[in-house]
Amino acid sequence: MPKNAFYAQSGGVTAVINASACGLIETARKHPDKIANVYAGRNGIIGALTEDLIDTSQESDADIAALRHTPSGGFGSCRFKLKDLETSRAEYERLIEVFKAHDIGYFFYNGGGDSQDTSHKVSQIGEKMGYPITCVGIPKTVDNDLPITDNCPGFGSVAKYVAVSIREASFDVASMAKTSTKIFVMEVMGRHAGWIAAAGGLAAETESDGPHIILFPEITFDEAKFLAKVKDAVERHGYCSIVVSEGVRNAEGQFLAETGLRDAFGHAQLGGVAPVVAQLVKDKLGYKYHWAVADYLQRAARHISSKSDVEQAYAMGKAAVELALEGKNAVMPTVVRVSNNPYKWEIGHANLADVANVEKMMPKEFISDDGFGITPACREYLQPLIEGEDYPPYKNGLPDYVKLKNVAVAKKLSTTFEVK
Amino acid sequence: MPKNAFYAQSGGVTAVINASACGLIETARKHPDKIANVYAGRNGIIGALTEDLIDTSQESDADIAALRHTPSGGFGSCRFKLKDLETSRAEYERLIEVFKAHDIGYFFYNGGGDSQDTSHKVSQIGEKMGYPITCVGIPKTVDNDLPITDNCPGFGSVAKYVAVSIREASFDVASMAKTSTKIFVMEVMGRHAGWIAAAGGLAAETESDGPHIILFPEITFDEAKFLAKVKDAVERHGYCSIVVSEGVRNAEGQFLAETGLRDAFGHAQLGGVAPVVAQLVKDKLGYKYHWAVADYLQRAARHISSKSDVEQAYAMGKAAVELALEGKNAVMPTVVRVSNNPYKWEIGHANLADVANVEKMMPKEFISDDGFGITPACREYLQPLIEGEDYPPYKNGLPDYVKLKNVAVAKKLSTTFEVK
Repeated sequence: MPKNAFYAQSGGVTAVINASACGLIETARKHPDKIANVYAGRNGIIGALTEDLIDTSQESDADIAALRHTPSGGFGSCRFKLKDLETSRAEYERLIEVFKAHDIGYFFYNGGGDSQDTSHKVSQIGEKMGYPITCVGIPKTVDNDLPITDNCPGFGSVAKYVAVSIREASFDVASMAKTSTKIFVMEVMGRHAGWIAAAGGLAAETESDGPHIILFPEITFDEAKFLAKVKDAVERHGYCSIVVSEGVRNAEGQFLAETGLRDAFGHAQLGGVAPVVAQLVKDKLGYKYHWAVADYLQRAARHISSKSDVEQAYAMGKAAVELALEGKNAVMPTVVRVSNNPYKWEIGHANLADVANVEKMMPKEFISDDGFGITPACREYLQPLIEGEDYPPYKNGLPDYVKLKNVAVAKKLSTTFEVK
Repeated sequence: MPKNAFYAQSGGVTAVINASACGLIETARKHPDKIANVYAGRNGIIGALTEDLIDTSQESDADIAALRHTPSGGFGSCRFKLKDLETSRAEYERLIEVFKAHDIGYFFYNGGGDSQDTSHKVSQIGEKMGYPITCVGIPKTVDNDLPITDNCPGFGSVAKYVAVSIREASFDVASMAKTSTKIFVMEVMGRHAGWIAAAGGLAAETESDGPHIILFPEITFDEAKFLAKVKDAVERHGYCSIVVSEGVRNAEGQFLAETGLRDAFGHAQLGGVAPVVAQLVKDKLGYKYHWAVADYLQRAARHISSKSDVEQAYAMGKAAVELALEGKNAVMPTVVRVSNNPYKWEIGHANLADVANVEKMMPKEFISDDGFGITPACREYLQPLIEGEDYPPYKNGLPDYVKLKNVAVAKKLSTTFEVK
């Protein structure tokens, strides 16, 4: 008898996490002898804990196919971390209760580092709590910090958005610099690692192109060195275009974002390192500035997703089902880079035990000696990840993104569970 | 004997001002019997005052064609306003000196309200200073505030960017709202008029779609009413997505942006109304928020330009030359709307005297009764302007925008001129 599968989206969503869901559901639908139905967790793992499951069989093939070009988490996501088996025993027992009630034999968890850790722990339930379940993680994170896999689905599209945007804004400020704006600062995500900021560097093909400066979280902010670099760029190119990571810290270890703006009550204001950097340049060098904070726009920008990212996201969802049907447990499909130019990749897989709690930082040799740019090695790694366009269909001038019906599976348990 | 033409880009650049330049130069090249060469002002009108002219005949047909898909001002722009003939007599005399030296018989000025005013004044030189010159303005402004013309080239593309972006971000926050971010605030341009903010409203096709709230510069900010609306949206839809215009003011007439953030020295910080609004919601309602400030990204986003905007921008450049060759002076080509659905338009023209110093505000009936949304009439006006996609070519995963050679015309004058 075929078992049901549980699928959940976890953590911050991306432009392509739904492409993974699409790959997973479409592949599962081809194996009704092995997988009866895919139940999605409404708002991620919380849906499992509260027995709030979505019956994906209620969605048409066309709507599932449309997930491939729809950003965000189609079933809802959540920020909720299961701790170890001992600390969170009640949660794990509840998962088993729900899985048993709904005859779930496969657990697919689509997320970043914390989620892979959870997948790994759920895979241990079989042994430790006597409930057999096949667990496969599906990589997803704009932070690109999962180990083993060449890159993380979601990252390539953010990388493309950031590179395209800073190229466009750099062209703009170059036109205005003679009499007006000379400094443009664009803030991007990446609290721990500079992968996203680094992607901005792809926009510069020659030394005179913007961005002229990238501020990485890996490099301690040195005000004097930074200001000298800004002045130099303005003197040589007429303007200075800057990409700054939200995670940049000063020598005291403080986030730069926390050192500047305050609200009317004097409270430090988070999430705005761009205005801090821009104001510093204005105060010390007197140049007129503009700044932008892309925030969610960067990770939701399905309209400018990279084709390789969409393809890999889909392939990860598909491979997750295939790995499970091969009997692999406690694994995560990965992207394996075969060659750079032309970019070729294939599907591999890693043990969740090797993925959980390992953060892939950006190699030192990817940042230029002066700390303000990317190296040719970095460019060689990043370039293929932004290759190709994969435009969504449009209707009335806007991307035609799908909203699923998300019909609930009838509850079978009389018990409830409060998520804290 | 054919005369030369002078062309300059003025004020804030857009995603499609170069498409107008493309239309103008390609059309001029078809009439070598009437227009010998197009000289572009390097950095706008400053290039004329300083005799720093760009010889566009040095650019290949392919590079001129590529202007159609390249954002920013290919010849450089400037913020420099010529005052009336009496106050700025020295500037006007200098323009005549340069135009005479380079045998310039046509003056094409591509810009917004101030620029059309300048075009109008230059057209008066013929009478008042004895130098015959045919002056044609070319409309351009993301602010969409020029009168007579159906819309202003540059606006449609910003409108599309804003509508696409807020749709994508709204999908994102909807996925996260259960356990995390419930409020998303996106700040857009438009200091005096809410055209750009209104365009965000196109993203919402049903009442539950984001954006749920638009804050217009036309509507005095009412904190209590706003917070009630936010709370209502969160209670009904799970989240609240907000578009805020940089020009929103409170009952005291202050820009909201100036009431909130201060730098480390306590100075008010401009250009950040989004964080002010987000922080207010957090302080008063306790919801977790994210905010974005699109700034230059919105007006430079050629990658998501609307097709109708690109076509109209090109058509305006082409029509400017045709009007000049028909002997029309002191005019500006306009877009005339023929029908809404399907959207049909044709080229008209207006007298610069009727355009100069008239600002087209958003009609009151375009804003919904509660002041937080757009009406069906507004939607009917805006919808055609974001229709169609006009993707630029890509190379290495990035838009392949052209950088012109911008070779200077040899100076003929021994005099110099200092621009103040």
